[in-house]
Amino acid sequence: MQLDHIKILGFDADDTLWNNETFFREAEVDFFQLLNEYAPRAQVEKKLFEIEMQNLEQYGYGIKSFVLSMTETALFITDQKLPGRITHEILEIGKAMLAKPVKLLHEVEETLGRLTETHELVVATKGDLLDQQRKLRKSGLAKYFHHIEIMPDKQITDYQNMLARLKIPAQNFFMTGNSIKSDILPVLEMGGYAMHVPYHTTWAHEDVKDDIQSPNFYRGQTLADLLKIIEG
Amino acid sequence: MQLDHIKILGFDADDTLWNNETFFREAEVDFFQLLNEYAPRAQVEKKLFEIEMQNLEQYGYGIKSFVLSMTETALFITDQKLPGRITHEILEIGKAMLAKPVKLLHEVEETLGRLTETHELVVATKGDLLDQQRKLRKSGLAKYFHHIEIMPDKQITDYQNMLARLKIPAQNFFMTGNSIKSDILPVLEMGGYAMHVPYHTTWAHEDVKDDIQSPNFYRGQTLADLLKIIEG
Repeated sequence: MQLDHIKILGFDADDTLWNNETFFREAEVDFFQLLNEYAPRAQVEKKLFEIEMQNLEQYGYGIKSFVLSMTETALFITDQKLPGRITHEILEIGKAMLAKPVKLLHEVEETLGRLTETHELVVATKGDLLDQQRKLRKSGLAKYFHHIEIMPDKQITDYQNMLARLKIPAQNFFMTGNSIKSDILPVLEMGGYAMHVPYHTTWAHEDVKDDIQSPNFYRGQTLADLLKIIEG
Repeated sequence: MQLDHIKILGFDADDTLWNNETFFREAEVDFFQLLNEYAPRAQVEKKLFEIEMQNLEQYGYGIKSFVLSMTETALFITDQKLPGRITHEILEIGKAMLAKPVKLLHEVEETLGRLTETHELVVATKGDLLDQQRKLRKSGLAKYFHHIEIMPDKQITDYQNMLARLKIPAQNFFMTGNSIKSDILPVLEMGGYAMHVPYHTTWAHEDVKDDIQSPNFYRGQTLADLLKIIEG
């Protein structure tokens, strides 16, 4: 079989193993609602995205960064006349997000259960360390994974560092995830393999045009499609 | 020599390799100043610590968590009548902290440079992933370390997970740090070795009574004292 040389299977976490982006989108709707007497939704949405991008290098990904960027956006939209009541509501949005249960996506547990019999599985995710570890614990999936890598970002160098730690070359690595930009392109560029499983919602920051021609690239509808590819 | 069996030297980062706590203390002073027309410093200080402790499990450690807890404290102190101007200033305190340069403590670079010739060195730190990686990059110390472990907390289980990954028993591990609670006690309890190097400021949360009798415990004044212990 063609993919016999694959030793390690990498998995993105948010929106690949479990729901995440929908929580951010729902939280944004609550946030726009809080500011609807100050500005129309489209204006707040545009400003929030702009501020998130400005803050990305300093704040990184995750819920706490999102709360800080919402607060900054609200200050801008209200011309610094942000009432304490709204600031309080923004903090509450963040705390509610942190308390959300983890809901696994379709066929995730069965697929990981089968693949773990033949391969080493690793989680390769970006985001806030504490958030990701909490979600992994709540998910009940930790037992399937040999290694958890929480990266500051998912650039080629981040994957290279991980593979060096795992002591395997990129040709023996197969990554699965919902983000073309973060999960697929850097891995293909290193000479690894990748499968894209789209999620119904993609954050604008992760959204890129997809016209991939690589022979190492696969498309799936659910995580279970990985079984057909790996098991042949 | 007695410590010939030590294979890996672990180092805490904040306030062991570089200054950190002083930045938090300075930021707090700025924060108390912002609220001094609402409440006396002692009251704000007490409330901030209380809120930080309440939020610790959800927010974890680091600058972003600190900013969110300062905001929550300010809302409480002003009875939710927090002016936008102060909310803005609180965000600015956080951004200024994130932009601070990393200043190495006394004799750190020379000590690591010598120890790296004979031992594997690892950083074992808690805190925000992105903050810690940024500080390590800015510090110029990354080249001395074989492995960087950023833990959600520094309980015994966190150390056990790290040592399992490093594939060594606790008896071959020697940890150095400024916090008795986080760097010393869990490692001694596992059967490892530890040296305490006090920092002039300790966060109340890390401050514990110290009456350690273990033969595996050492006290140092600067990181360089580790050379005498390890090299005999």
